[in-house]
Amino acid sequence: MWEKVWEQDKIAYGGDYNPEQWPEETWEEDMRLLKLAHIDTLTLNVFSWAALQPSEEEYRFDKLDKIMVLAKENGMKVCLATSTGAHPAWMAKKYPEILRTEFGGVKRKFGGRHNSCPNSLTYRKYSVKLAEQLAERYQNYDNIVAWHISNEYGGECYCDNCEKAFRVWLKKRYGTLEELNRAWNTSFWGHTFYDWDEIVLPDTRSEHMELERTMAQGISIDYRRFNSDSILECFRLEYEAVKKYTPQIPVTTNLMGAYKTLDYRKWGKYMDFISWDNYPSNEDSVSKTAFHHDLMRGVGNGKPFVLMEQTPSQQNWQPFNALKRPGVMRLWSYQAVAHGSDSVLFFQLKRSIGGCEKYHGAVISHAGHENTRVFREAAELGRELEQLGGEILGSVGTAETALMFDWENWWAVEYSSGPSIDLKYHQEALEYYTALHSKNIPVDIIGEEDDLSRYKLLIAPILYMTKPGVDERIRRFVTGGGIFIATYFSGYVDENDLVITGGYPGRLRDILGIWVEESDALPKHLANQFIYDGQEYEANILCDIIHSEGAKTLAEYQKDFYQGTPVITCNSFGKGTAYYVGTHSGAEFYQKFLGDICRKNNIHPAAETPKGVEAVKRVREKEQYLFLLNHNEEAKEVHLPESFAELLTGKEYQKGAILKLPAKGAAIMKSR
Amino acid sequence: MWEKVWEQDKIAYGGDYNPEQWPEETWEEDMRLLKLAHIDTLTLNVFSWAALQPSEEEYRFDKLDKIMVLAKENGMKVCLATSTGAHPAWMAKKYPEILRTEFGGVKRKFGGRHNSCPNSLTYRKYSVKLAEQLAERYQNYDNIVAWHISNEYGGECYCDNCEKAFRVWLKKRYGTLEELNRAWNTSFWGHTFYDWDEIVLPDTRSEHMELERTMAQGISIDYRRFNSDSILECFRLEYEAVKKYTPQIPVTTNLMGAYKTLDYRKWGKYMDFISWDNYPSNEDSVSKTAFHHDLMRGVGNGKPFVLMEQTPSQQNWQPFNALKRPGVMRLWSYQAVAHGSDSVLFFQLKRSIGGCEKYHGAVISHAGHENTRVFREAAELGRELEQLGGEILGSVGTAETALMFDWENWWAVEYSSGPSIDLKYHQEALEYYTALHSKNIPVDIIGEEDDLSRYKLLIAPILYMTKPGVDERIRRFVTGGGIFIATYFSGYVDENDLVITGGYPGRLRDILGIWVEESDALPKHLANQFIYDGQEYEANILCDIIHSEGAKTLAEYQKDFYQGTPVITCNSFGKGTAYYVGTHSGAEFYQKFLGDICRKNNIHPAAETPKGVEAVKRVREKEQYLFLLNHNEEAKEVHLPESFAELLTGKEYQKGAILKLPAKGAAIMKSR
Amino acid sequence: MWEKVWEQDKIAYGGDYNPEQWPEETWEEDMRLLKLAHIDTLTLNVFSWAALQPSEEEYRFDKLDKIMVLAKENGMKVCLATSTGAHPAWMAKKYPEILRTEFGGVKRKFGGRHNSCPNSLTYRKYSVKLAEQLAERYQNYDNIVAWHISNEYGGECYCDNCEKAFRVWLKKRYGTLEELNRAWNTSFWGHTFYDWDEIVLPDTRSEHMELERTMAQGISIDYRRFNSDSILECFRLEYEAVKKYTPQIPVTTNLMGAYKTLDYRKWGKYMDFISWDNYPSNEDSVSKTAFHHDLMRGVGNGKPFVLMEQTPSQQNWQPFNALKRPGVMRLWSYQAVAHGSDSVLFFQLKRSIGGCEKYHGAVISHAGHENTRVFREAAELGRELEQLGGEILGSVGTAETALMFDWENWWAVEYSSGPSIDLKYHQEALEYYTALHSKNIPVDIIGEEDDLSRYKLLIAPILYMTKPGVDERIRRFVTGGGIFIATYFSGYVDENDLVITGGYPGRLRDILGIWVEESDALPKHLANQFIYDGQEYEANILCDIIHSEGAKTLAEYQKDFYQGTPVITCNSFGKGTAYYVGTHSGAEFYQKFLGDICRKNNIHPAAETPKGVEAVKRVREKEQYLFLLNHNEEAKEVHLPESFAELLTGKEYQKGAILKLPAKGAAIMKSR
Repeated sequence: MWEKVWEQDKIAYGGDYNPEQWPEETWEEDMRLLKLAHIDTLTLNVFSWAALQPSEEEYRFDKLDKIMVLAKENGMKVCLATSTGAHPAWMAKKYPEILRTEFGGVKRKFGGRHNSCPNSLTYRKYSVKLAEQLAERYQNYDNIVAWHISNEYGGECYCDNCEKAFRVWLKKRYGTLEELNRAWNTSFWGHTFYDWDEIVLPDTRSEHMELERTMAQGISIDYRRFNSDSILECFRLEYEAVKKYTPQIPVTTNLMGAYKTLDYRKWGKYMDFISWDNYPSNEDSVSKTAFHHDLMRGVGNGKPFVLMEQTPSQQNWQPFNALKRPGVMRLWSYQAVAHGSDSVLFFQLKRSIGGCEKYHGAVISHAGHENTRVFREAAELGRELEQLGGEILGSVGTAETALMFDWENWWAVEYSSGPSIDLKYHQEALEYYTALHSKNIPVDIIGEEDDLSRYKLLIAPILYMTKPGVDERIRRFVTGGGIFIATYFSGYVDENDLVITGGYPGRLRDILGIWVEESDALPKHLANQFIYDGQEYEANILCDIIHSEGAKTLAEYQKDFYQGTPVITCNSFGKGTAYYVGTHSGAEFYQKFLGDICRKNNIHPAAETPKGVEAVKRVREKEQYLFLLNHNEEAKEVHLPESFAELLTGKEYQKGAILKLPAKGAAIMKSR
Repeated sequence: MWEKVWEQDKIAYGGDYNPEQWPEETWEEDMRLLKLAHIDTLTLNVFSWAALQPSEEEYRFDKLDKIMVLAKENGMKVCLATSTGAHPAWMAKKYPEILRTEFGGVKRKFGGRHNSCPNSLTYRKYSVKLAEQLAERYQNYDNIVAWHISNEYGGECYCDNCEKAFRVWLKKRYGTLEELNRAWNTSFWGHTFYDWDEIVLPDTRSEHMELERTMAQGISIDYRRFNSDSILECFRLEYEAVKKYTPQIPVTTNLMGAYKTLDYRKWGKYMDFISWDNYPSNEDSVSKTAFHHDLMRGVGNGKPFVLMEQTPSQQNWQPFNALKRPGVMRLWSYQAVAHGSDSVLFFQLKRSIGGCEKYHGAVISHAGHENTRVFREAAELGRELEQLGGEILGSVGTAETALMFDWENWWAVEYSSGPSIDLKYHQEALEYYTALHSKNIPVDIIGEEDDLSRYKLLIAPILYMTKPGVDERIRRFVTGGGIFIATYFSGYVDENDLVITGGYPGRLRDILGIWVEESDALPKHLANQFIYDGQEYEANILCDIIHSEGAKTLAEYQKDFYQGTPVITCNSFGKGTAYYVGTHSGAEFYQKFLGDICRKNNIHPAAETPKGVEAVKRVREKEQYLFLLNHNEEAKEVHLPESFAELLTGKEYQKGAILKLPAKGAAIMKSR
Repeated sequence: MWEKVWEQDKIAYGGDYNPEQWPEETWEEDMRLLKLAHIDTLTLNVFSWAALQPSEEEYRFDKLDKIMVLAKENGMKVCLATSTGAHPAWMAKKYPEILRTEFGGVKRKFGGRHNSCPNSLTYRKYSVKLAEQLAERYQNYDNIVAWHISNEYGGECYCDNCEKAFRVWLKKRYGTLEELNRAWNTSFWGHTFYDWDEIVLPDTRSEHMELERTMAQGISIDYRRFNSDSILECFRLEYEAVKKYTPQIPVTTNLMGAYKTLDYRKWGKYMDFISWDNYPSNEDSVSKTAFHHDLMRGVGNGKPFVLMEQTPSQQNWQPFNALKRPGVMRLWSYQAVAHGSDSVLFFQLKRSIGGCEKYHGAVISHAGHENTRVFREAAELGRELEQLGGEILGSVGTAETALMFDWENWWAVEYSSGPSIDLKYHQEALEYYTALHSKNIPVDIIGEEDDLSRYKLLIAPILYMTKPGVDERIRRFVTGGGIFIATYFSGYVDENDLVITGGYPGRLRDILGIWVEESDALPKHLANQFIYDGQEYEANILCDIIHSEGAKTLAEYQKDFYQGTPVITCNSFGKGTAYYVGTHSGAEFYQKFLGDICRKNNIHPAAETPKGVEAVKRVREKEQYLFLLNHNEEAKEVHLPESFAELLTGKEYQKGAILKLPAKGAAIMKSR
């Protein structure tokens, strides 16, 4: 049987609602408007710590009680936040140790949000206590569908307390200073540590030139692990607190897509379900958003997730906060659902009147009524989702292709001093992904430790850090018939960023059948070229100089002193094949190259569509849903490969029929 | 009877003179040179605190005594500074609390200038004491024409002392924490304050992402008010100190044009007359300088002002310090006079030999003699001013058009998080001003609280913050027959940056007859267009989506989903008319649009002139002075609309005659 | 008799080797590889302080003992470092005063390298103690050819301890506060100091707007002098420590070319020989590298130097770390030798596996064997150098042209507030140098105090600061028949950055026969032009407005108000001639202008060669070596002006013969 993300009978619709910012007499009118928009789910209590706990001894739940009753009486489901995303001012004054110290050493004062030192025992004590009190008090509300711990966890702290906690964390990781000195290669530049207390946090006061440039990669990567773990620990403590009273209610926190600071791959293991906030910038492509949805689904091990936030229209923190054009909010909502969301939730349901988010989009605008374009679009989408009922819920993806994306590798690649500042891990992964996405080929974005057995194709862009076992898993995958694609700057280091000597790409060398002797880094205007299948493509960022050790050459450099040497290779290994792309190229190449490989290996798209029409499939037991999303500014036609019922209009289509999608239109085709 | 700014019988000529930097034996030669240049006014004692007070107990006036005698004996008027613009090194060492703490928390050491914490009681005590001693000592010098308090007040302080003073200031402003919490909307992000001591200054340690980006607009705007008031208090304390001994001598401090940090509108109320320092950069337009002159005249309530500083030739702090071309110093001096200055003063009369201003222009160069181009030009101008005698002095402007420019609104507009980082208040005001200036239409730049009754036309660019009463004053103005022009991003918030709900533009909605439902922010390369009077213009930065509620549509968007909706509207209201410009456009549009309105409403230019020839009028009782300033690189001809005597040449012109202005030439036409 | 730099019978070949980063069992294989590459010199012990001194009381030399034996047994010469370039972590913890405070006031923690406060008595005590122990322990190793003190000294410290030391330094320099107040012109902005303790270090907390912009040039220049002296003192203390035991072994430290922070001109006086690290960026020209070699030779008073570091292939800290193309490492090695190096040493012989330099080039790559391009090139060069034997060693240059380059002037020029931010001293010097270098005219780069008598031509680009005696030395030089070239922005100030009044260029005025009345600073797109010898050239950055006082005009401005006034002048003075270039121009002009002057004055190139073929001469007693270096991507032919033996191939060439140089080829022609 398929599994529900949370206790909802339909795709949840609603979002963040902050009645505590408004006079009580306005609440009933809000309810009228929200119900008019077919909203059924409210995220409550996100930033109320200061209101709920006016002093160390005192808690006041009277207003939240009223809000909970209001929600209940109006038939709303509640996603209840624990409010610990911003500590109260009195606490910062009384216990300054809860304030973070920034990268570079500046001690913060009270202000902003996400402002608590994750290793502050005071913060942990009072955040857990608040979560516990909320769980105890509201445990009998059967309309609570999830706990929303804190909010958009993130950031770093460099305080003395964290420094001490880092040493404890290191002792646990390495056991002895000998092992730590080895792992950090401290003989370089005479950094040998003789006492744990000699270790300091890596920032511009110690090892960093700037935020993303360090002189000691090993230390800096460990700090990132430690910081991610420290914040995760805050989540886990609150998790346990609410579970004491409500073991049946699932617990989440809202993630932020490809957020570099936290190792979400590890976080996913401790969350009952994944939820995340989708805020593409004006410049972001459709495939970038798709990538982030798939990434979030991936950290949740492929299960459906919850879209916790998106804006009904504009944002407020972009340089230029464009309105979402008519239809776009609906289209992107269905894109989220297509990629695995079982919800459509907004930040925010009602615009605040003061503070920095007052010009962020909302279902209820400052005008305060329903006669706005944004409200009408929201209400229309609400109506559609209501009509969909239980369809789609719990269904999952169908990918035969996996793309490896690992946070620790991300950190390591971009901390590297040399060979090129153009090495961008997220971007590289996105380019491979985009080539597949443009062909509607479904992709699972997986971690280095995930099971490979269900895939035909594995792509591992810039697999620079090969953690223990990953080469062996890939070796088994290829031996068993899998297709593997690796790129330049792969296999260099182990989990401590120590080079695996003997020749690049290290432990992947036998699988790929090559040895990379050198790697040339040039600015993009000095690109090299190669010819693949009769067409010339650019080679830039890095140009690996490759010796085949069994691999076949698919393309060669066209100039410079390594002219005529291999740049793309292909190695038969066991029953499978391992490709190596020894450089960075452009979108046309990735589309051509991956297209060829998919074709050859019977990896099929969700559907064939015109350019700019995204096709995504979700399946649930015997049910199959094909989402068709027209991101173009004009109408498009899709030839239907089988018979479908279109769920939003209720129309039936025969195999071979043509579906007309208006500009920005969306359709959900259920197989018949 | 017209009023004198200060005790001068002619346009004062001279500037900053620092004999204390030179051996006494050089002073007489300086006097010879200054008199050769027809200089009559010296600004003395600007940075002598360390010399005057070598220690806490000791004052030494012997050198200043000599300098005062020197000035007196040479027939010079004196603008006497109090020297408190930079505290002595010994004071910084003994009382570190006088040192400022910078935005972000760095505590300063001794150095630079403008370096005292405005809330330091030590600074206040000793600055007042010094001012008092100077006033007492030199009270009988009848050639002192003004007190020059401190120098170019500015900057901010974020020290603990200011933090405490901020709380006191807030208590005075808000009375209770309930009211403060309401005004700051602290329920947003859980910022509720339960004790005044929980409030901290807003910088990157608390609410700011960077200097101009805050998460808490309400707090940040109040900090700016507080800081401006704190520094103003320093001025006022010295003001009172010198008035004790010399109640008859007017008191000023030199302002800096559109200096964002200090609310000069408020400062103007406490200054006997306005003086300011005019340092356009290479890129600044003629109209930008004119704007600043008019702004400074405006903060002085329309009275003549004193141009306290300008450079005879190059500056030293620009990236490229170009020489003022021949004639330009004279031309710009007359531009200052045309816009209301009763002086032409320089920084500096003699170039220093060490420190960072040694390559700033001076009347006496490092060569030390009179045989330089700069000296010759200065002497020639001095001769002209001497010949002008008492003409022009005390005359005032003739504007029928007012442009509203408000510091608090400026802060609020540019602190706004969204909708666009291109929102620039000063720039927007300047663009409207420039359209009028290019037509020689005189403008008064007024505040939100100023009397509107004397104007035909009121322009309020980006009137985002509508403070109490301003809508009512505008309503009365329009009802009574006034023409009002408002723009996009107007009427949104009250004086606390809290949105006025119910629909934009808030309290201006009835006057303008429109409702702005949404506002689209796009980068400039994605501009929209509109057609006004048959011509296409660009719409960028913000595109308001407007519903008419009675207003007539003058222009519509040409594309995007709001194609065909109004962008420029016009509303009949009472006996007057209110225009709304729902976007930002280019110079051609503003010229066309304002030109039409002026023509329709009989708002006349000072004179019709060729392009690049500025015409400005000053009047005094029955006397009228028309300044004609040729900013072009070539000669121009002006058709004279009436009979004039030209004051600089003494020539007479009949009505209809042609005046030939050489390149960079200036003429002062007195009506006959 | 010619003098050896150090005890080597041939050009030393080798570089930094760090066996302490590797298991001992790998050392023998390293030796096999290094000897295979004909390497004979190892720089050892550069970053081992933490290893050598695990605690305050304990020293451990066992591993270094083994390494020294290894080197000795394998016939390697040793350049023995003192390891004090990075202090141990335990020392930072126990004595935090050894940690630096950064510009702006941030106190550092342990990390990085070059991290010790130069005025820390603890650092000085323990660094000297370590140096002494090393000298005592290894004094009997006859294969130690040099002491390598610390490593790449540099940086600044702004701690309280340095502040106190600065006051002591100032007292020694100025004697009295009266003299200091005069030298710093403290009457400007009221900075008078009444007590030494009132003086603080100049950074953004006091006098600086940013690192390179100060409000008090005098203080900031003195801080730079003080900081350079403080670090030099650290070097000198270690120097004395090792000399106690090994008076016969020469002592050096590795400099860094045109490194602005340290006054190498002064450092050179205290070093037994100069060594330096050559790391051109991708963009650097051949002539820039040549300039740095000549600069380093110059600070060593013209004696041969040691190239202590260069990379065998790529670097790791450039944005794009390109490989050195085949032949380039060899070519650039010979370029170093041509300009005076008696060594070819690398950083690094073996690539480390962890830390920020693991992707910097090395003779032994991560692959660990000899079968790489880089190894083969290194081995081939090693073979050539072995074959050269004692040739070239100790030979010196032949320049008749001197270019003045002074660190204090550099600081002063670029601290200047006005007239232009485009004033770049190093760049200006480089442009004059490049014009000569492109013609193979040898240049000595000398200091303001160096002897001029051996030169025909002296060029002093932007000689802004004229220190005592320099004008008199130049006057004597020109009077005696020398040719002198000065440029814009010269002669303005004395050694305290105080303007020399009376007219620019101050004390150089009589020599140059001109007076510079004004100087116009424009951005480059507003350049002026001038015609020289019938050809038009650009005039930018500064345009001096010049009055001849005897000088002949060679070129005039073509436009603007100073059109027709002189820009290039020439003054007969005594038996010599003084040229003045009153602006900045382009490469074509400098080549033409200097070419004319050289031709006229019989200043000859080392050889006539095709473009891109560098010709450099070294001479030793009767032996003459002509280096021909083809920097082009294609082969070139050189007509030989006399008979030669080519040392690398052993071939003989007759006068008039043609030498074919392949692309990137090098030849060393010994006169017969």
